[in-house]
Amino acid sequence: MQPVLADSVKLTDDGVLILDRREFPFERTWVLCRTVEDVARAIEDMVTQSSGPYFAVLYGMVLKARTLEDKPFAQARAELARTAQLLENTRRTNNALRKATKIVLDAVDEAQDVRSALQGAHNGDAVYRAKSQALGEHTANLLPDEATVLTHCWADLYLTETVRAAQQQGKKLRFFCTETRPYLQGARLTAETLIEMGVDTTLITDGMGAAVLQSGEVDALVTAADRVTMDGHVVNKVGTLGLAVAAHAFGVPFHALVQAPDRQAPTAADVPIEHRDGAEVLQVLGRPSATPRVKGLYPAFDVTPPRFVTDVVTDRGVFGAGELDKYYEGEQR
Amino acid sequence: MQPVLADSVKLTDDGVLILDRREFPFERTWVLCRTVEDVARAIEDMVTQSSGPYFAVLYGMVLKARTLEDKPFAQARAELARTAQLLENTRRTNNALRKATKIVLDAVDEAQDVRSALQGAHNGDAVYRAKSQALGEHTANLLPDEATVLTHCWADLYLTETVRAAQQQGKKLRFFCTETRPYLQGARLTAETLIEMGVDTTLITDGMGAAVLQSGEVDALVTAADRVTMDGHVVNKVGTLGLAVAAHAFGVPFHALVQAPDRQAPTAADVPIEHRDGAEVLQVLGRPSATPRVKGLYPAFDVTPPRFVTDVVTDRGVFGAGELDKYYEGEQR
Repeated sequence: MQPVLADSVKLTDDGVLILDRREFPFERTWVLCRTVEDVARAIEDMVTQSSGPYFAVLYGMVLKARTLEDKPFAQARAELARTAQLLENTRRTNNALRKATKIVLDAVDEAQDVRSALQGAHNGDAVYRAKSQALGEHTANLLPDEATVLTHCWADLYLTETVRAAQQQGKKLRFFCTETRPYLQGARLTAETLIEMGVDTTLITDGMGAAVLQSGEVDALVTAADRVTMDGHVVNKVGTLGLAVAAHAFGVPFHALVQAPDRQAPTAADVPIEHRDGAEVLQVLGRPSATPRVKGLYPAFDVTPPRFVTDVVTDRGVFGAGELDKYYEGEQR
Repeated sequence: MQPVLADSVKLTDDGVLILDRREFPFERTWVLCRTVEDVARAIEDMVTQSSGPYFAVLYGMVLKARTLEDKPFAQARAELARTAQLLENTRRTNNALRKATKIVLDAVDEAQDVRSALQGAHNGDAVYRAKSQALGEHTANLLPDEATVLTHCWADLYLTETVRAAQQQGKKLRFFCTETRPYLQGARLTAETLIEMGVDTTLITDGMGAAVLQSGEVDALVTAADRVTMDGHVVNKVGTLGLAVAAHAFGVPFHALVQAPDRQAPTAADVPIEHRDGAEVLQVLGRPSATPRVKGLYPAFDVTPPRFVTDVVTDRGVFGAGELDKYYEGEQR
């Protein structure tokens, strides 16, 4: 069964429809973004996250291109490039946004026509899904039948494609997922989606991961990565590091999923870590969790050093954290 | 300044007044327990926790003793012993409850008079506070001036006495505290109390501890322990293990605070771990965090093996996790 979150950004004649992940699964509300500025604001406001912004950027570019069809190409292209920058700046740690704008701009450039933005976006959509499918199959190959997997936050299509591939391989998986404070993506998105897919799923708080890893019940820690540096640092939702360190301590492999390591990031120092407003830590589902006298800190991501990473699973296969150059070998030949 | 949580269980003529830690700090409500059964229910319902149940048991025993004053001593003593069992069973991982009932029963036995329960309870109260003060001084001695400390959950009098001792030593401390899901004791009790005591305090979610430990900003991880086994396993609120493993990985010392290692628990297998209802994980401040389709798991405590424990701080001083026998050496001479 295709879970609703696997197709949660849709281009329509009126704009871009985005499923509001802040309210999901309690409410299934779709936000209609009529302009690219609406799309940018929706991304900044976390209406969607994980791979959602990638699809939103693809179709946001199309919205903008629609408004430029009557302009001279050079002017339209320049405006579209500014839109690309606007969109890329919505979540700066997320490398996929630059890929989304590039695939659209490349299509426009090739045709010398902004109307080709649509084809570029469709292409970007298909490429992303195909890569996620390949990655999911490689991940499923690593997991034994009856495997119990611990995951963190919401790995989106990497997760759903891993589960789908495992199911096609006849493997039955069981999941523990962390709730992932402050926005509870694990409780709301991951747990719900796994259950939609028929997977036995147990929710734990973020502090319970080490105990579950110590228990011997878990066969693998599997998370997405927002970025992986060429030397094997895994940048992902804060909390991943603690789980990876505990997995390492208790002999559980950690598979980090990313379409490709980031050639623009040789090492961790090349990745700016987004610090969100500390006040976001002081609330749960919109209600205060502490008094206003308390201050919060919210590093949105953490960086897991390669010594705690067993391997990195990409669309091109599985690589040790110390051999990520090999991912690009085919291209250099 | 004495924070309100340092004196949150009070014996009155009408019963035992217990500050409701479930609502604190948003509401400062005191629950009046008129009978010992009310006290037991309050403990089971988590009205109070950490050292709170110890004081509640002391004074709960007094409530019961008040009802027995006209009975023959042997009968009164037997009923009081049954009450002791009732109270001890409210939270089975908490070793302090047995100490509380014992100190009251010992006073009664010595005087052969149930009215001496009051003196026993006062004695138990004073002993606990004196030990916490000694323990706090030993902990403060371990911390450099301007130290930044990471703590988890709510270490209660061990925390407040550590801060008080450090302040008396002229040391300025800074704290990070984890919110400690599912009941947010860190956000609600620890952060609020540290601020009451004038300490610079930053709240993080449970998943952020490893990133903060990796950052180099933290000089020590300091938590209470519900129990420490004779071979150095630290049993404490779930989440402690993950922080201890991360502290070890990033070279930060972990000081576990307990009045005394538990001679009845040679090793971890001797400590039953309380599993609370998994449904408690599926809510935050009374609101659902996942749909009813999801199941939760709630091991209330985890067990940190001695290899991740730098030392255990007791009322008698600081001991390595491998030398806890020394705590009792004085007694054996």
